[in-house]
Amino acid sequence: MKALFLNCSLKDSNETSNTDALYKEAETIFHEEGVESETVRVADYNIAYGISEDEGKGDEWPIIFDKVKAADIVVLGTPLWLGEKSSVATLVIERLYGGSGITNEKGQSIYYNKVGGVVITGNEDGAKNAARSVLYAFSHIGFTVPPNVDTYWVGEAGPGESYIKAEGQKNDFSVGHAKTMAHNLIHFAQMFRNNPIPAKGNTME
Amino acid sequence: MKALFLNCSLKDSNETSNTDALYKEAETIFHEEGVESETVRVADYNIAYGISEDEGKGDEWPIIFDKVKAADIVVLGTPLWLGEKSSVATLVIERLYGGSGITNEKGQSIYYNKVGGVVITGNEDGAKNAARSVLYAFSHIGFTVPPNVDTYWVGEAGPGESYIKAEGQKNDFSVGHAKTMAHNLIHFAQMFRNNPIPAKGNTME
Amino acid sequence: MKALFLNCSLKDSNETSNTDALYKEAETIFHEEGVESETVRVADYNIAYGISEDEGKGDEWPIIFDKVKAADIVVLGTPLWLGEKSSVATLVIERLYGGSGITNEKGQSIYYNKVGGVVITGNEDGAKNAARSVLYAFSHIGFTVPPNVDTYWVGEAGPGESYIKAEGQKNDFSVGHAKTMAHNLIHFAQMFRNNPIPAKGNTME
Amino acid sequence: MKALFLNCSLKDSNETSNTDALYKEAETIFHEEGVESETVRVADYNIAYGISEDEGKGDEWPIIFDKVKAADIVVLGTPLWLGEKSSVATLVIERLYGGSGITNEKGQSIYYNKVGGVVITGNEDGAKNAARSVLYAFSHIGFTVPPNVDTYWVGEAGPGESYIKAEGQKNDFSVGHAKTMAHNLIHFAQMFRNNPIPAKGNTME
Repeated sequence: MKALFLNCSLKDSNETSNTDALYKEAETIFHEEGVESETVRVADYNIAYGISEDEGKGDEWPIIFDKVKAADIVVLGTPLWLGEKSSVATLVIERLYGGSGITNEKGQSIYYNKVGGVVITGNEDGAKNAARSVLYAFSHIGFTVPPNVDTYWVGEAGPGESYIKAEGQKNDFSVGHAKTMAHNLIHFAQMFRNNPIPAKGNTME
Repeated sequence: MKALFLNCSLKDSNETSNTDALYKEAETIFHEEGVESETVRVADYNIAYGISEDEGKGDEWPIIFDKVKAADIVVLGTPLWLGEKSSVATLVIERLYGGSGITNEKGQSIYYNKVGGVVITGNEDGAKNAARSVLYAFSHIGFTVPPNVDTYWVGEAGPGESYIKAEGQKNDFSVGHAKTMAHNLIHFAQMFRNNPIPAKGNTME
Repeated sequence: MKALFLNCSLKDSNETSNTDALYKEAETIFHEEGVESETVRVADYNIAYGISEDEGKGDEWPIIFDKVKAADIVVLGTPLWLGEKSSVATLVIERLYGGSGITNEKGQSIYYNKVGGVVITGNEDGAKNAARSVLYAFSHIGFTVPPNVDTYWVGEAGPGESYIKAEGQKNDFSVGHAKTMAHNLIHFAQMFRNNPIPAKGNTME
Repeated sequence: MKALFLNCSLKDSNETSNTDALYKEAETIFHEEGVESETVRVADYNIAYGISEDEGKGDEWPIIFDKVKAADIVVLGTPLWLGEKSSVATLVIERLYGGSGITNEKGQSIYYNKVGGVVITGNEDGAKNAARSVLYAFSHIGFTVPPNVDTYWVGEAGPGESYIKAEGQKNDFSVGHAKTMAHNLIHFAQMFRNNPIPAKGNTME
């Protein structure tokens, strides 16, 4: 089984990502349970604006989209700005949406039998709003959202340090939720391997 | 199997509910597939504000909460006001949240192995915002959110008629989504009957 | 000039409200500047569900609505549950919306020349989402939203103490924003006293 | 006086924008009232991800930011994808936020005495959610939000034509709101020309 982490930091991979640090708590569980995990720092790619599968002219979304297609588990990671998910996360969701008309061999959306989760870090407030947005988008386009798959760390109201400097890894709530998320994502992905969602009332024709 | 429809109209059952009319499209599928369906018009009950399981002094939430506990499938229905779910829907979610610390025999939240969906009608704009709010709440407290379980009807921007008068039942998108929602809710509920979510990394101790 | 604080705690005034405690930072400024401030604990009243000005049968909304009509400044206070404003706050907004068709002597919505702000406390995450909802509702029905009129305190992610116990009054960001909010609300209210919004392109006929 | 329209379509100006078409209803009022109006199609520019004023390496945000600084009125336009504002709109708000620490000669945020509005078109549902997000961001960083400055057109639930093809210009609600928005934006901008917001309790030191 494969887990794909789409890290939607505004920064490319030359810089450290706080969201990455929290994801690693989930990744540990993935590895323990024999699930491969690949991280994509989305800002490393040149992704075009648009809703088609491939916008051409050097659009690198198809590279990422191939990884999504191959994944059983997709976790989107995002920082918070003004209490919302990042522009990079918004772009990724638009592009995922643009692919939601593609169907599997049963005629369901290609995202059926995939499960989604979300990891959020910010210096303060906005995590549940971002989680709400990402998980709804997942469900609306065909992913399954298991229980308790939103994991986040934010500090007290106002300016302050981010996850790594604030030692967010000592926050039992955030770390515990990362682990619960991983376990539930694995369980559901395995369940779909064994029993895919039947094509009844949910095909696109 | 049992489906429970919590209709969070501002009106009690002496008045016709548009949201009810759209839910009936899903209910038809429930009946065809042998799933019992019960509708609760929440405004018929005297539900207290608060986060405990029973606020006392005539609080009738425990009556509804017992029905939630017995259900495999919970669908929340809501109208739209200013582009958001109703105050009654907000109250129901607060009360569901208040019960999320209760555990099943494995130590998981009592909502594990239950599936949730949402039905929304309004004369105009706001449905996806309300769906986002309700489905996130479900997932955050332990429900599973299958793919494509948000069903809605809204008219064009501005004042206008509601679902029934506007003949929303002729809208293939809304009716089709109601049916897809029902099928996916049934499938997942059956799946959990056969294979409950294992207690691994997701218990509350 | 009059400021009205609509405290939408789930608790009635027999219990201490954290949101009240943060509002007091703004109230101090109101008093220094000669603005009267009245606090209404909404849960003390029996407010019906509905969109009319008076739902009858003991509906006490008209008592509060008279206070709104007489106020220059309206501040809505709310706690957070699942990262959203309370059911009581949702109810108040529905009822304010229900009155938005009433016009002043110029034919504008009765809320023209009134200014709105918001105070939020919660043990964790959700403040900006609640602020977004309340301030948008205000603007959409006729209130003016000055800059920096959202004031909040929340703690670090996860379970934790609320504003009073956590000594949120030591948080310079939260307290400073309460004071800025008060100053800007006063300034705009005075401006509208001197120069009401002209009836040009904004009347309801 | 100057109005700036930041059109956050995913398409560059080689393609027709529905949001542009609705904005033109407001622009007519701007011109009648002697307000200059400039439209920027944001997707024509190469805007970097980040929170600084200038991310370097060909970042063209400073070109747009100079226009924002010179404007009295800023209207953000956005399409809807999955019921939310576009990634381009999210990017613009991040960049505006990145400039919110710059102060005017009084020490207030540079956005003080500027007013903001929003224009949204989509084939269906999501407008109020996008308006809520944009207007809150404006208010939170220093803009004033007058009453009734959210203008939108969306069609009935489900797939369908966009504003131009659907003849949205025949929708009195959408067109009327565009005009009301324009009038209120002009009035407030004039008011701030005559009486800027005093530096009392709202400076950044």
